[in-house]
Amino acid sequence: MADHASSDDSSSNAHRAVARSSADALRAEAQRLAFAPLLFQAARLLRDTGLLAALVDAPAGLAPTVLATSCGLSLYATRVLLEAGLAIGLVESDGTPDGAYRLTRIGRLVLRDPITRANMDFVHDVCAAGALGLEEALRDGRPAGLRALGGDWPTIYDGLSSLSPAARRSWLAFDHLYSDSAFDAAITHLLARGPLGRLLDVGGNTGRFALRCLARDPSVRVTTLDLPGQIAMQPRVPRLESIPFDLLDHARPFPDPFDIVWMSQVVSCFSDDDMVSILRRARSALAPGGRVVVLETYWDHQTSAAARVSLQASSLYFAAIANGRSKMVHSADLARDAARAVLSLVDEVRPLGISHTLQIFR
Amino acid sequence: MADHASSDDSSSNAHRAVARSSADALRAEAQRLAFAPLLFQAARLLRDTGLLAALVDAPAGLAPTVLATSCGLSLYATRVLLEAGLAIGLVESDGTPDGAYRLTRIGRLVLRDPITRANMDFVHDVCAAGALGLEEALRDGRPAGLRALGGDWPTIYDGLSSLSPAARRSWLAFDHLYSDSAFDAAITHLLARGPLGRLLDVGGNTGRFALRCLARDPSVRVTTLDLPGQIAMQPRVPRLESIPFDLLDHARPFPDPFDIVWMSQVVSCFSDDDMVSILRRARSALAPGGRVVVLETYWDHQTSAAARVSLQASSLYFAAIANGRSKMVHSADLARDAARAVLSLVDEVRPLGISHTLQIFR
Repeated sequence: MADHASSDDSSSNAHRAVARSSADALRAEAQRLAFAPLLFQAARLLRDTGLLAALVDAPAGLAPTVLATSCGLSLYATRVLLEAGLAIGLVESDGTPDGAYRLTRIGRLVLRDPITRANMDFVHDVCAAGALGLEEALRDGRPAGLRALGGDWPTIYDGLSSLSPAARRSWLAFDHLYSDSAFDAAITHLLARGPLGRLLDVGGNTGRFALRCLARDPSVRVTTLDLPGQIAMQPRVPRLESIPFDLLDHARPFPDPFDIVWMSQVVSCFSDDDMVSILRRARSALAPGGRVVVLETYWDHQTSAAARVSLQASSLYFAAIANGRSKMVHSADLARDAARAVLSLVDEVRPLGISHTLQIFR
Repeated sequence: MADHASSDDSSSNAHRAVARSSADALRAEAQRLAFAPLLFQAARLLRDTGLLAALVDAPAGLAPTVLATSCGLSLYATRVLLEAGLAIGLVESDGTPDGAYRLTRIGRLVLRDPITRANMDFVHDVCAAGALGLEEALRDGRPAGLRALGGDWPTIYDGLSSLSPAARRSWLAFDHLYSDSAFDAAITHLLARGPLGRLLDVGGNTGRFALRCLARDPSVRVTTLDLPGQIAMQPRVPRLESIPFDLLDHARPFPDPFDIVWMSQVVSCFSDDDMVSILRRARSALAPGGRVVVLETYWDHQTSAAARVSLQASSLYFAAIANGRSKMVHSADLARDAARAVLSLVDEVRPLGISHTLQIFR
């Protein structure tokens, strides 16, 4: 990029140089986006071939020839990956092709941060192929990318127990990473109001929340509602009743009565209209004095940009692959749904866990 | 992210706040990378659904409901795309779910910059599905991602004339964008030394450089060498001879004698060993006083980060999809190949076009 500035004013030239550098940084960011599917695979392979791990204990850096030998890669493959790593900032070098490469702070996050790792595994094993179905999914309102996972299910929840081992492992790790982090804090908060009593776990998934409740409160009785595939993954233990239930069937009432109707990350799995129906049925299932309790990850409640990016990007998974009609929501979306279901917010606690908000409605 | 700092020193607190903000920015960048295949599709659809274009003339911004109507999308699809656009910085908003969205500078680049557009089209139509083959490609040294384009060709060059119309169009646009920008400047430089004489165009591709030479120099005679599929795309015109030729057949000499043996973006299409063989045969084809002329995009010669990112990322295409053994090279790589072929650099001109270097060897 030649400098065509003709002014003698060095301050003005300096301003131009800064503007040019900032414009170049934006252009570079646009190119990283334009090549994103390729760069994602390079990042994953820099991690999974051992290249990043080899660099973590070598602050002075290592040459491509050394890295190739220690990771069992061809020199060509090593250089292709390392040079892509320069493009995305996972490694840095002195700019010579054979000089030492060093790990950067982002490289260290990709290697060691458990959230980044769970997100990347989930996107590779569950979303990368299906991402190509996003256009059709948004046009037709159904999860067109789900075909890439090998089945013809209406939603990923119907197909969960049939996924490949890698896809299932990465899905569960991603799901549990987000929900587990907040469960204990949420139960502590609920127990401060007294015993849990009779608790209905709407969308009980694999039963992790239910089991924690049983362990923390010796008198609680838990009922879970979820699709048969999820119910099949729940353990059979005393004080836990698991009921196969399609929440999309608006005509089917919830069992009752319950002191707490609990929903963890249910909002992000259903459309607005479905959510209103679920909340109305939840209200009808309450015993006198009972409460509807929602644990959710609202993108507007995040104080970190990293959490906001993860949530807004996860909506693309819900649209293309999970069900074609839900997303990570804004807190105002749930507030509107709750008002339509005639529920009033009585308490709100945040942050809980990685990025959660606990809301109690009556 | 709660602030656990207990110090009363406000300067130290300020430092911590800056460090935390910088750490958060790095984490956010890592998450953008972790969700890259999904975010790429969102960026492309923000462009191709007309959402970005609708915002370009609305500096005060437009609400999702207005955008949905004007682009013929559901409100759900509109919001999923706009919120993903927040995550990658293509749009900005006041943070409310129904408030106005505005285009950012990166959004404008994605919409209007011809290089970003050509890169994104190329990556979607040619690379996105095949990117999943990168791991196998790097392990086995063959373009395993090429299968995703629907054929069983040894390289993409063999399959070019059989690609889908979209893939072929995007491949040619990407290829021509980079090479066309430098051709006229390179010919001007060569003509300053006198008429071109007899010119051998090694890897003549679709004949664009040959035709420009014929138009600029009424006495030049051009011979092109390339695979039969490429030769078939070249026009039949006077002073142009097109010879089907597999450059990988090291035993087959080039025709001779020539005053100029020309190679534009040949280096990036062949492995080091193949390149040495090509350069040796090029030297043997020279008439007395003849020159080997190389036009290439070296990643270390770039003054802009955007160009460097594009080139380093393009190597992943060569590895996963094009041929499994070439890449965008460092200038030192070609210098080493040239030395092995007993060629001496006599002139070097840069930058030419978007990102090229012209090198003349004897």
